Order: sequence, then structure tokens, then C-alpha cells
Amino acid sequence: MLLLAVKGINEENHAFLSQYGIDVVTPDTITEDQVPEVVISYAWDSVIGKKILANPNAKLKWIQTQSAGVDYLPLKELKDFGVVVTNASGLKAIPIAQTVLSYILYFARGLNIYASRTHWEPYTNQYLITELPVLVFGTGRIGQQIASHIKTFGGTVYGVNTTGHAVAGFDEVYSMYNYQEALAKSRVIVDGLPGTVETDNFFDSRFFEQVNQLFLFINIGRGTTLNQDDLLAAIDDSRVKYAALDVTTPEPLPRNHPLFERPQVLLTQHTSWGESVNAGRTGGLFRLLEKNIPTFVTDGTVKQNVVNLDKGY
Amino acid sequence: MLLLAVKGINEENHAFLSQYGIDVVTPDTITEDQVPEVVISYAWDSVIGKKILANPNAKLKWIQTQSAGVDYLPLKELKDFGVVVTNASGLKAIPIAQTVLSYILYFARGLNIYASRTHWEPYTNQYLITELPVLVFGTGRIGQQIASHIKTFGGTVYGVNTTGHAVAGFDEVYSMYNYQEALAKSRVIVDGLPGTVETDNFFDSRFFEQVNQLFLFINIGRGTTLNQDDLLAAIDDSRVKYAALDVTTPEPLPRNHPLFERPQVLLTQHTSWGESVNAGRTGGLFRLLEKNIPTFVTDGTVKQNVVNLDKGY
Repeated sequence: MLLLAVKGINEENHAFLSQYGIDVVTPDTITEDQVPEVVISYAWDSVIGKKILANPNAKLKWIQTQSAGVDYLPLKELKDFGVVVTNASGLKAIPIAQTVLSYILYFARGLNIYASRTHWEPYTNQYLITELPVLVFGTGRIGQQIASHIKTFGGTVYGVNTTGHAVAGFDEVYSMYNYQEALAKSRVIVDGLPGTVETDNFFDSRFFEQVNQLFLFINIGRGTTLNQDDLLAAIDDSRVKYAALDVTTPEPLPRNHPLFERPQVLLTQHTSWGESVNAGRTGGLFRLLEKNIPTFVTDGTVKQNVVNLDKGY
Repeated sequence: MLLLAVKGINEENHAFLSQYGIDVVTPDTITEDQVPEVVISYAWDSVIGKKILANPNAKLKWIQTQSAGVDYLPLKELKDFGVVVTNASGLKAIPIAQTVLSYILYFARGLNIYASRTHWEPYTNQYLITELPVLVFGTGRIGQQIASHIKTFGGTVYGVNTTGHAVAGFDEVYSMYNYQEALAKSRVIVDGLPGTVETDNFFDSRFFEQVNQLFLFINIGRGTTLNQDDLLAAIDDSRVKYAALDVTTPEPLPRNHPLFERPQVLLTQHTSWGESVNAGRTGGLFRLLEKNIPTFVTDGTVKQNVVNLDKGY
């Protein structure tokens, strides 16, 4: 069985695949004869991919993407071809959730004050996590991982998703259209929304008008979901005390951007996914592939991270 | 039954005591006749205390201190008098442990870099808690609370105490005289040692000579346990990457002290105990008293936080 490694794999990965009888080619080593023989594509190369899909006898059965979103793939064609797609959703949920906890503790424990203190002046206006209920917009894997940490600290965590359906790990879940009750009892908001038409500019002046004495606004979702000017206005009139943004519009932010100039704002420059062992934004992706290999070679099925090709996620 | 409230109590506390038939006097309101009638002393007033102990008919039976250490009390006299002492050990274990987690996440997630960044320059040399095994010197309530958090993040945590006896929540526990095996596999050290003759200057140049590529040194124990000059030397020759110190010698640190000038060092100025609801260094102390009241009024016993008057802790 042939695997096309568009994303590089190491010796250990080779050994793993080899024990399941899987041979590896790369976009650099693949021959024309091998193109229709590819059964698994580890990440997607659009040029080779086009050749594969143009050949009705091609053996392609499974694509593992290196992204959570799959909007760049020819989904209808893949469905007609009988190809299954698995995505990278949840790949960096653990590091991102740890970054969110680092934000909350940074401001709650007063490290934001102490980070720049160069003289002795104790600051004792701190909070415990139990004193700062958290409202997470987005109850997918990242949201669930955040909720799990908040609960182990004994805190309170509410979730928001499209319909308000319950999700394990959250104390209560509300819908995108009826979250005000949760907002009123929360001190921290985590924006973990994906970038869609519905979420575009969701956190705008109308949203922040509902907010009073919010301790911390966090964005680890998409920059497009937040109106940054409206957030800055809410900070300037004290409705929002602090903000921690991993994603911004644009990226990179230009020099002298107002977000750089507010001491209340912490910017982590789209690196909340960082970890040491599986370095890089798609580091650790092979572990996702690995999980599906045993069933795939046995009976052709995959179970983890399967994309619904009609819905596109 | 009379309680002397050396530390102030609020209306709710009054109501609680009153339901157990306990009346309250304060150092300002107590009369000479009432001095021998005091049964419970909530915190200790050395002047009134001396009068009580000079009167063999005095009814004092129980002192709840507002400190963990009790070296300022006349322990032998109290023992002869038949007084039981309960201390404030563990009072601030939860906030202090949250501060320790905030330190670890601050450096692990790169917030130390981003806190002062005023231009776009991503930093991706981050770590997960699982990638930074923690060695805690001191396995009492604060150490146990820290260990519990590290474990819920999936991390590894070793403990050190006098004899190396196992303590629940730690992966392994070593003795103060034989901890080198744990040191070799740890990336974070938490100094949570009490100030005693044995711990004085424990973390000195000989200690740091054993250390190589330590990610983070934390002191939430006593300033006297650490030789700050030796820590700075270890930072300057890269054996220790970062340090977070809540306690220092002296306090306050003078202006222009080298600890203020190292960007690798975070100082929280002896405020790791901060919380909002039970504000103040002894905030929440009444909850400790409360726990012992029911048995004390019933049969004269107390069970929580009892000090061994021979050992002094």
C-alpha cells in the first residue's frame, strides 16, 4: 500500500508505517506510474492531487489534512471518488488550552503588574480561578480542553455553541442567540469561534455594550470574529479590564498599532499552539494519522477526525 | 464561653459563634474581670496573654494563631497550662499554588517574552507542562496543592521532604539528603521549604553546581533558604534559565537590586497568597477556627491544624 507524504515524516514514522506494509513516496520521489497507486495522502498536494482525481483507476482512498478547515479541498469530487478525509481538528487543543490558562492566571495573579515592576510596590488585587467564572464561545475540542482545566481548579465554566446543546465538561451551555444569562455571571470571555459568515465581527460594539466589569477578554479563535476597535473602546471606558489576543487583524500587526500600546492588552502573535516536542504549527500530526492506520489497513475504515464532505467540517 | 478576638471578626462570624453560645470580647473591650474568663484566643495578644498565663485560675484552653509558624508563642508555658494551639498552616495553599502554576505557565507559554513585546516577532520556543517535570521541596499542604495541579495537567511531579516518605499526589518522594536522582530528571524546582536551621541557605552554589539546564527556579518558601547571589550566578552562566521569587532577602528589596535588573527574574513581592474574597494575608482564617468549633464546644477537642507543642510545628 502506498502513502504519499506531502508533509515530511521521520524515520520512526517510516518504521511505524512499514510494520503495516505501507510504503512511502514524497512529491519529490513519486514517479508517474506511482501516482494512481497512492492509497493514502498525508496532507494534500494540489498538483499531484489533480492528476490522481483525473484517473478513474486511481486507488486513493484517504486524505489526512494538516489543517482543521478543509475548504481548499475539492470536496464534491472527493466524495464522488469515494475518498474519506480526516482533518487536524484538536491537534493543538492541549497547548492552546494551556495558553488560555496562562492568560487567565497571568492577569488573575497580578503577573501583568509585576512583569514590568522595577521597584518594591506590592500589588494584592488578585483573584483565584474560582472567583472568575469563564464563558467559552465554541465548545469543540479546544473549548472542552479549557473547560476541563477550569473545572480541575474548582472554577465555573459556561459554553456557547450554535444551538445551546449540552457538552460534557461545561457547567451550562447556551446558544449563540441567547447567551446573556451566562454573560451576566461571567468575568472571563474566551472567543474560540471559527471564522464563518455567522461569526464575522460577532464581538462588536453591540456585544460589548452588554458587558460590564469584564475582567478578561481572550481571543484564540479567529481574528475576524472580533472588532478590535470596539474592544479597545470597551477597555478605554473600563467595561473590559484586560485582553489577551492570540489572533489579530491583520497578522502581523503593523508597528505602533494601538493594540501594542495598551498596557491592558497581551498579544501572543498566533503562537498559542507552541510546544517543544511536537514543534511547529502542524507538529504532532502523525499521531492523528497513526490512530487511524490499524483499522484502515484491516478493513478500510477510519474513525478519528472524519470530515463530513457534505457539510465541509 | 468567652472568645478573645485579637484578629477582627465580622457580623457573620459573630452570628456563627453566638449559635454555639460563644461571646466575643476584643483587646479594646475586654475588662480585667474578663481576662481569666477567656477560653478561646483567636490570634494572640502578648500583653493580655501574659496576664492570662499569670493567673492559675484562668480558663484559657485554645489558641488559634494567624500564622503557620508558632515560634513567637511561649510553647512550654502553654503546654504546662494545658492549652491547645492550632495554627494557620494551609490557609493560603490554594492561592499560593495558583501563583506557582501562573509562574510555570508564564515562562512555559512564552508570556515573559510577549509581556514587553511592542512589535510583531513571534516566539515559538514554548513548553507544555508535561514537558517540564517539577521537583517540589516541601511536601506539606502547599506542595500537595501544587502537585495536584501538575497532575491534572498530565505532568510529572516529584517531592522532597526530610525523610523521603511517600506523600499522596507526588509521583515519587525523595529525602533532603538524597534528591539528586529527581533533580536530574526535573526542569522546574519549587522551593517551598520552611525557615529552619536545616534549610538556611540550602539553595547555594553547591546546590546550583548540581543543576544543568534548569528551566525555572521558584521560591515560595522562605527567603532565607535561598542564596540569591548564587542563584544569579547560576542564571548568568545559563545553568538556570528563569526564576520566579515570591520571597526575597531582604523585603522590601532596595531599588536597583540586581534581582530587579535581570529580565529572567519575576518578583511577586510576597503576595502569592492574594485572593479577592478572603483578602489580606490572613483572610479566610475564620474558616479554620470554624472547623474546630463544633467539637470544641461539645467535648473540648480540636482536630484541625493542631500544633505539637514539643516539636513547635
